[in-house]
Amino acid sequence: MSRVPRILEVRTRILKKNDELARQMRQEFLAAGVFVVNLVSSPGTGKTRLLEETLVRLQAQGWRVAAVVGDLETDNDARRLARSGAPVRQIQTHGCCHLEAHMVQEHLKGWILDSFDFLFIENIGNLVCPTSWDLGESLRVALMSVTEGEDKPLKYPGLFNTSDAVVITKTDLAEACEFSPALARQNLEAVRPGVPILETSAKTGQGVAQWVEFLCRRRGELLQPNRAPMTSLRP
Amino acid sequence: MSRVPRILEVRTRILKKNDELARQMRQEFLAAGVFVVNLVSSPGTGKTRLLEETLVRLQAQGWRVAAVVGDLETDNDARRLARSGAPVRQIQTHGCCHLEAHMVQEHLKGWILDSFDFLFIENIGNLVCPTSWDLGESLRVALMSVTEGEDKPLKYPGLFNTSDAVVITKTDLAEACEFSPALARQNLEAVRPGVPILETSAKTGQGVAQWVEFLCRRRGELLQPNRAPMTSLRP
Repeated sequence: MSRVPRILEVRTRILKKNDELARQMRQEFLAAGVFVVNLVSSPGTGKTRLLEETLVRLQAQGWRVAAVVGDLETDNDARRLARSGAPVRQIQTHGCCHLEAHMVQEHLKGWILDSFDFLFIENIGNLVCPTSWDLGESLRVALMSVTEGEDKPLKYPGLFNTSDAVVITKTDLAEACEFSPALARQNLEAVRPGVPILETSAKTGQGVAQWVEFLCRRRGELLQPNRAPMTSLRP
Repeated sequence: MSRVPRILEVRTRILKKNDELARQMRQEFLAAGVFVVNLVSSPGTGKTRLLEETLVRLQAQGWRVAAVVGDLETDNDARRLARSGAPVRQIQTHGCCHLEAHMVQEHLKGWILDSFDFLFIENIGNLVCPTSWDLGESLRVALMSVTEGEDKPLKYPGLFNTSDAVVITKTDLAEACEFSPALARQNLEAVRPGVPILETSAKTGQGVAQWVEFLCRRRGELLQPNRAPMTSLRP
């Protein structure tokens, strides 16, 4: 049966096209001084809640921030994020299970990239499909909530293995969920040795300052004023 | 650009093939008296925990049960479910984001269908991609946990709209998560009017007996001994 090779071939070509566009977008982002963060997780991990808090805190420190947020349907999340005062746009994919570089590019139209220090992309809630789609980000962050259990890195290694950092969310519920941070860290180490791991609760504020510091440090390392921007972060 | 129509065409053909196989499998399941349940949810919603409890309770009532469970990697879930004493098989998709009918068919080999009253299929943790893939089930159940928030039906309408029932899980955490069952029900009604909704906590046992009763009732309605099995449930 030829159907599997055929769809793989078509898929490979589309992915290659996406990678080329993403590479070009990354160059533009870095040239404009925008540090782009792609947030990926299951549905309901708390991406929007943490991002809203992040936008507020970064702005309070004088950073210029913006966000685009993906969902299959609704603009609920864009409306929630807009409460932070930052410019926010909603991408509705109408059934598509991940964001692609061209969707992000289209939703940036009319924004002056130079006017932002950080751009956050909140991906579709999905631990599988966003894995293969580079969006031109400089930092891919996988989030997992304590309510999902410690085994997610082992069961979805592709996503965790392509992430530059991991945020464990909803730590305020850890005890109620009998969640073991040590076991989660051990599982993350098994699939992505040395990955930075941050523990946060957007509800209590625990760990959020460290997360914001981490973002600023990573941005500084990449976009030092006396250094030419790197053209590519991923091999 | 022709790439979108081309991949859609290939995808449509594969889906059609899947639907034909699924229809044939459904006929075989019903002829053998097996009621097949496809459980779909986000990662970490608690499918495995509820299913383990379900297998135990159904067996205690004299029902003959089996399960196949899908994950990208690991056989953790099959090992957890096997503690119930029921025959269990693990499907590892190695990156594929959903189960397909042929994967289930292959993993049923060697089992005598007539020897089961219920077969549970635990799908890959994903609220998007399993939507389009019929597995020959007689009942598709979407699970959502109170930790994920009330808005999931609105944001992932495709899956909820193709489900025959919805189970809200982890109700023991509802208060800690400030989860509103009324709002969740309102959102479910908006995308799937009249869908049966069950609230459960596998941890405290709340609602699990009602869930098991619901399964037995549905099985009875479909597989009454004095009625020829229906050949198709979905149009």
